[in-house]
Amino acid sequence: MPNRDPLILGIDLGGTKILTSIINSKGEMLSRDHSFTPAAKGPEGVIQAILASADRAIEGASIAIDRVSAVGVGAPGLADPKTGILFTSPNLPGWEDVPLRDIIQEKLKKNTFLINDGNAGALGEYYFGAAKGAAHFVYVTISTGIGGGIVIDGKILNGCKGMAGEIGHMTIADEGPPCHCGNQGCWEALASGTALAKAAQKRIEMGAGTAILGFADGKIANVTAQTVQAAAEKGDPLANQLILKTAYYFGVGLANLVNIFNPQMIVIGGGLSNMGDRLLMPAYGVAEKRAFNRAYRTVRFVRAALGRNSGVLGAAAFAFEEMKRATFEPEG
Amino acid sequence: MPNRDPLILGIDLGGTKILTSIINSKGEMLSRDHSFTPAAKGPEGVIQAILASADRAIEGASIAIDRVSAVGVGAPGLADPKTGILFTSPNLPGWEDVPLRDIIQEKLKKNTFLINDGNAGALGEYYFGAAKGAAHFVYVTISTGIGGGIVIDGKILNGCKGMAGEIGHMTIADEGPPCHCGNQGCWEALASGTALAKAAQKRIEMGAGTAILGFADGKIANVTAQTVQAAAEKGDPLANQLILKTAYYFGVGLANLVNIFNPQMIVIGGGLSNMGDRLLMPAYGVAEKRAFNRAYRTVRFVRAALGRNSGVLGAAAFAFEEMKRATFEPEG
Repeated sequence: MPNRDPLILGIDLGGTKILTSIINSKGEMLSRDHSFTPAAKGPEGVIQAILASADRAIEGASIAIDRVSAVGVGAPGLADPKTGILFTSPNLPGWEDVPLRDIIQEKLKKNTFLINDGNAGALGEYYFGAAKGAAHFVYVTISTGIGGGIVIDGKILNGCKGMAGEIGHMTIADEGPPCHCGNQGCWEALASGTALAKAAQKRIEMGAGTAILGFADGKIANVTAQTVQAAAEKGDPLANQLILKTAYYFGVGLANLVNIFNPQMIVIGGGLSNMGDRLLMPAYGVAEKRAFNRAYRTVRFVRAALGRNSGVLGAAAFAFEEMKRATFEPEG
Repeated sequence: MPNRDPLILGIDLGGTKILTSIINSKGEMLSRDHSFTPAAKGPEGVIQAILASADRAIEGASIAIDRVSAVGVGAPGLADPKTGILFTSPNLPGWEDVPLRDIIQEKLKKNTFLINDGNAGALGEYYFGAAKGAAHFVYVTISTGIGGGIVIDGKILNGCKGMAGEIGHMTIADEGPPCHCGNQGCWEALASGTALAKAAQKRIEMGAGTAILGFADGKIANVTAQTVQAAAEKGDPLANQLILKTAYYFGVGLANLVNIFNPQMIVIGGGLSNMGDRLLMPAYGVAEKRAFNRAYRTVRFVRAALGRNSGVLGAAAFAFEEMKRATFEPEG
């Protein structure tokens, strides 16, 4: 029966992009639809955009919606898989206690499952990517912010209300810079792409000589992690110094993960990880210096394998797993 | 058959004290033997002391060793429950890769189980104390250091080699004071009783006016967390200021636990927790300010209920659980 492999509609809702895909149980993507998130339109506009993207993904896979067994949604912010509610999201203004799972389930008439985007990325790497077979690992995504997901004995750490795993918001410098979450000195406020860009802008404003501006059309506001990276690749001393500082802070947080979780693997993804060794090698060095030697020696640092697809693949994997569970465990 | 309730010999090995007890499945202690750890004598001397204490505990319960079903050992440092090896312990000089479980098992001819002391404390509170029925909680013990254990879905977080849960060694101030673990700015280096005593000593050395010395026979070297507390209770401003600073750092770490684990409960034990509201209320306030509001609202902070017995009771509970598991799951 060649057509009986269940298919999942995976949805990766981000603050700036929506990615939907029809995915089979091997993690093969039969279609892929990519669009921008109309975040300013609030929940209603964004949900419309999700549904339109879902239609295109179904069409792109040349299937009817009847062939879809379930829907897996990854969403940014505090998302509770048990209730299917997206409590709040720093990247989606106006979203408070939105029952996103039930809304999509009602619109598409398909069993739907909701999971936080960091956890989705972790599951994607676990089922289809760099963490295959690793029962204890931490997935860290470093880009504009720092997020992730923690897998213990093959299961996502959800905590009591699905809000666990906010590793980007552990304080690593109690008097550090303010974080948009309201705290200060969060890992994310010190080691993310945003933090790197801000640090560069500040140094340039203070008159530092650097080639960074040349990669940013001469405008401080255009300085990003990418422009810092470009300058670093050309040997710009300030750019390299700023990346080393980011690596330092990134390493401090990695050491915390090693000491707290004693993971066998830390999988690192997200846009900033594309800097590769320039960022990651010094970060690993800092982690080695700071973590328990014994625990450090048991961890393997690996790059994420699925790139931008980790979230949508993980959301689909989550739906597969929940469907299986529902088959074996009666509800209630 | 009134005598058939299985009895466990619980052993709580600490850096300064050994506590052994005969414990039944309800967590009742039929005997209790308390002695000092001859740490300077190294593993051999300490193991002799453990066995002598075990003899006294068995005698104290008026039973023969045949009545003991199993032995549960809680030990400080990096202890792997799978292999039964105590890898290393900051409080036990000369201990490196000691197969403590197997040594005791051979001497006593009883199934023996080894667990880290923080995890033992967590299990004690879970089975018999303040965390009964809480599937997701973090146990924090604040005394000379900060230790603890993390319970997820009713199970201890062990990590891949039994070294997880070293929450006292998460960095909360990357440029903070050195920690004996080799890192700097660890939670334990800033918020423990040792940190409080050191801070007081430093301020007194610098000439601060305070009543603390009066509680320490006038000797700076005698200043401890307890003498600071005594002075604070008499209204000494410096003592109160130092405790508030300790509370601040304690709260920063609690916020990290809330954001990372989204626990339903944080159980706080250890000698310093006996300061009560003076220390804990301001710490909770700091945690509330720094943690995600949503996650903070789901956590309940409670005081540990078992005092000094949490470790020995937890080691026994661990042995009970492992015995049960062995009954249902064939080995290998």
